[in-house]
Amino acid sequence: MSNYETSALNKVVRGSKRATYDVETINEILDAKFLCHIAFTWEGKAIVLPMAYGRFEDKIYIHGSLKNRMMLCLLEAGEASISVTHLDGLVLARSAFHHSANYRSANIFGRVTKLEDPEEKMAALKCILDHMIPNHWDNIRQPNEKELNATLVIELTIESASAKIRAEGAVDEKADYDLPIWAGVIPIKEVALAQESDELLKGTAKQVPDAVLEYVKRNC
Amino acid sequence: MSNYETSALNKVVRGSKRATYDVETINEILDAKFLCHIAFTWEGKAIVLPMAYGRFEDKIYIHGSLKNRMMLCLLEAGEASISVTHLDGLVLARSAFHHSANYRSANIFGRVTKLEDPEEKMAALKCILDHMIPNHWDNIRQPNEKELNATLVIELTIESASAKIRAEGAVDEKADYDLPIWAGVIPIKEVALAQESDELLKGTAKQVPDAVLEYVKRNC
Repeated sequence: MSNYETSALNKVVRGSKRATYDVETINEILDAKFLCHIAFTWEGKAIVLPMAYGRFEDKIYIHGSLKNRMMLCLLEAGEASISVTHLDGLVLARSAFHHSANYRSANIFGRVTKLEDPEEKMAALKCILDHMIPNHWDNIRQPNEKELNATLVIELTIESASAKIRAEGAVDEKADYDLPIWAGVIPIKEVALAQESDELLKGTAKQVPDAVLEYVKRNC
Repeated sequence: MSNYETSALNKVVRGSKRATYDVETINEILDAKFLCHIAFTWEGKAIVLPMAYGRFEDKIYIHGSLKNRMMLCLLEAGEASISVTHLDGLVLARSAFHHSANYRSANIFGRVTKLEDPEEKMAALKCILDHMIPNHWDNIRQPNEKELNATLVIELTIESASAKIRAEGAVDEKADYDLPIWAGVIPIKEVALAQESDELLKGTAKQVPDAVLEYVKRNC
């Protein structure tokens, strides 16, 4: 499958020329960040909260405490809507009307289930951590049984998705190009600064892992 | 009013020691960015999408086309939930369980109404643009009647809100501090790069406005 099927749920109507349903493109957007926003229904209200996540193939994993309200609401609904958005620039046009942003935004929908099997839960937690910082799982103390039991892990299977990408300069009304008004783009980028080691590290623990150094180097 | 009242809707239960209901703190989080995520209900499903916004006092303004599905759904519901999240760092603990992120996150709830009065709509559009890039409104061509009529503007009055802020290093289990495992924080920052002027600018239009130069300088 190279494209998600379109339906009334995921079809982009406004700005449809910027839309894509390509699985690979959507996965690239999902993999570029580990923070998403999730909508859930609570007492008839649609509510949104930020959440860390990991992706493996067509699965999205999130985790939290056993009493996490959002996660319990998602399990009750059996489905979830997730948005991942990267801001890439301010698009400053000649007219207010054509001001915009450059961005990559993925919206996914899918069925959610609670993971019960300890091995599946452990694999999901590794996926979430590796999504945050690749190749760091083996450097750290992995969850023990008590921690695993205290963690609610949800698997979402992507059933429908769309993305919108804007990556160009200002597009103004024809007549406005003659106005003495500046237009352009201010690129925006999320960067990592140098790691700050914990002050309580002792001995060999002070050695910064390659995974951390590589992350900073790749995102600086 | 210095604090939003707490109710089952906005009270932070998980990680409540990181919670605040302070109006000023929440406004600072809202003013640090112009991109939010909004939840809405469509055919019984809670859906989330990204959106630009502006804030003035206890009002949040969003705009879109007259047929914007999300905005029409919000008006039908009469209320909205909005999340604004700034990622400030990866918190890399000794244990997987205590991995976290540093962040500032505001969640607001409120009644929404459609603005009909042209002057109110214009003021809201100025608010949204100034929220994206301060002091730029007077540099550009402001909306004409046709553009104003083609724009749906929604005013949300903040009725309930909460924020969560995490701004510290790794906090591990006591026994883990003796492990030979590195821990620390990788700070994350959203930065602006130098503005890229439109290639079609002519004559005096080539002069980059102070608002643009100041934005880049303040966010670089």
